[in-house]
Amino acid sequence: MEFNKIIEGKSAEAWDIYIPNLSVDCVVFGFHDTTLKVLVTRLKEVDLWALPGGYVLKIENLKEAANRILFSRTGAENIYLQEFKVFSDLNRSDGIFDDFPDTLWNKQRFLSVGFYALVDFHHVNLVMDDFSDALEWKSIDELPDFMMDHRSIFDKALETLRRQLNHKPIGYSLLPEKFTMPELQKLYEIILAKKLNRGNFYRKMLRYDILEKLEESRKGGAHKAPDLYKFDLEKYRLALKNGLNEGW
Amino acid sequence: MEFNKIIEGKSAEAWDIYIPNLSVDCVVFGFHDTTLKVLVTRLKEVDLWALPGGYVLKIENLKEAANRILFSRTGAENIYLQEFKVFSDLNRSDGIFDDFPDTLWNKQRFLSVGFYALVDFHHVNLVMDDFSDALEWKSIDELPDFMMDHRSIFDKALETLRRQLNHKPIGYSLLPEKFTMPELQKLYEIILAKKLNRGNFYRKMLRYDILEKLEESRKGGAHKAPDLYKFDLEKYRLALKNGLNEGW
Repeated sequence: MEFNKIIEGKSAEAWDIYIPNLSVDCVVFGFHDTTLKVLVTRLKEVDLWALPGGYVLKIENLKEAANRILFSRTGAENIYLQEFKVFSDLNRSDGIFDDFPDTLWNKQRFLSVGFYALVDFHHVNLVMDDFSDALEWKSIDELPDFMMDHRSIFDKALETLRRQLNHKPIGYSLLPEKFTMPELQKLYEIILAKKLNRGNFYRKMLRYDILEKLEESRKGGAHKAPDLYKFDLEKYRLALKNGLNEGW
Repeated sequence: MEFNKIIEGKSAEAWDIYIPNLSVDCVVFGFHDTTLKVLVTRLKEVDLWALPGGYVLKIENLKEAANRILFSRTGAENIYLQEFKVFSDLNRSDGIFDDFPDTLWNKQRFLSVGFYALVDFHHVNLVMDDFSDALEWKSIDELPDFMMDHRSIFDKALETLRRQLNHKPIGYSLLPEKFTMPELQKLYEIILAKKLNRGNFYRKMLRYDILEKLEESRKGGAHKAPDLYKFDLEKYRLALKNGLNEGW
């Protein structure tokens, strides 16, 4: 079935079951091969790239909506989710559904609630939906041109991640259970968009007393096997409560 | 005109001009007499206290809606506004409009976008609207019982203010142009909900290099007149960009 038919076919049901004028867009971050990646999808036929998103059922709250949408695209549950901003510009979907009748659900004005999600890259199974012909991880340095204001939504998500790095369990949610100190440092460098001094980073991290050094080390590779760490979750959560930097 | 008639009279127009299912609630902070205060309103007849709020016109974005609502209640323009969370619980308005027909605008499910606002207490003129018989500043320690989930909205606003104290121009927005160091310290202590050491606070503030010491000092009072300061706005904004605490 062609794209237009699919959209129109779903419109009547959408008017029945969803809250009008409100959508959810998700910036899903994953960390793999020392690269921070984002999940992007391509709309069929129109060849437009977008963030995965959807609508809010009349019988669910926003977080339930975001969880349902993410589960349907990634098969992952209990994903770390953080709402960060509502995108409400009047002209945000100008030009997208021009060829459709004005009664089309998708052609209404939508204010979109942005969530960022942090997933363990290895626990995700991508699922295509009826509207898309691609769903891929892209490095944040190699993102495609996005439709509508999705680039602004991504930018704001990354800015929020940067600001919340010392307050939210961002390292814990993005890294596998066991990781090396260079991997943790790389993640911080990408999010902060700057190089960090290796010695300072190690000292600071160890002083926080939130990591547990494991007996085992990483196998393989030509160099000396690097030590493996994991988060001491109880201490980590306690430390995040006050923020990881020196407060007032 | 009685309260019910007013509500019903405005319902038909509301369906025409507003985005359905979406509202805005504002937590308006002001600082006066070394007390942090919040603007609260009382709904006529039903005797319920609420945060000032309203709906979103089809022809405006969220920030425009919040600005319009605040201007209508305070007469103040260019108020510092920060969106912080959408409140979307399914049952958040249970019991409020039970006696009205289901078609009443106000009886629909509303997801409410929370904004906090910071105002200079002296630049505000409170304006009553058709629905309320009180609009008052209350100390955050002496808030009335709120209707619906407005207490949660307030709590989340204060928590956000605390977290953003080192990133947003909170001191600048709440204090009058000229202030004393004890006033600034008091504001920080209230927001952080803890006593701060006077010497440390002075040293830290001066080290940030964001304050300008004025030639004049505060007149009146039995004690030695305290020095007056104002923010060096350019340096302040630059400092906030990276956060006022030591970062990575």
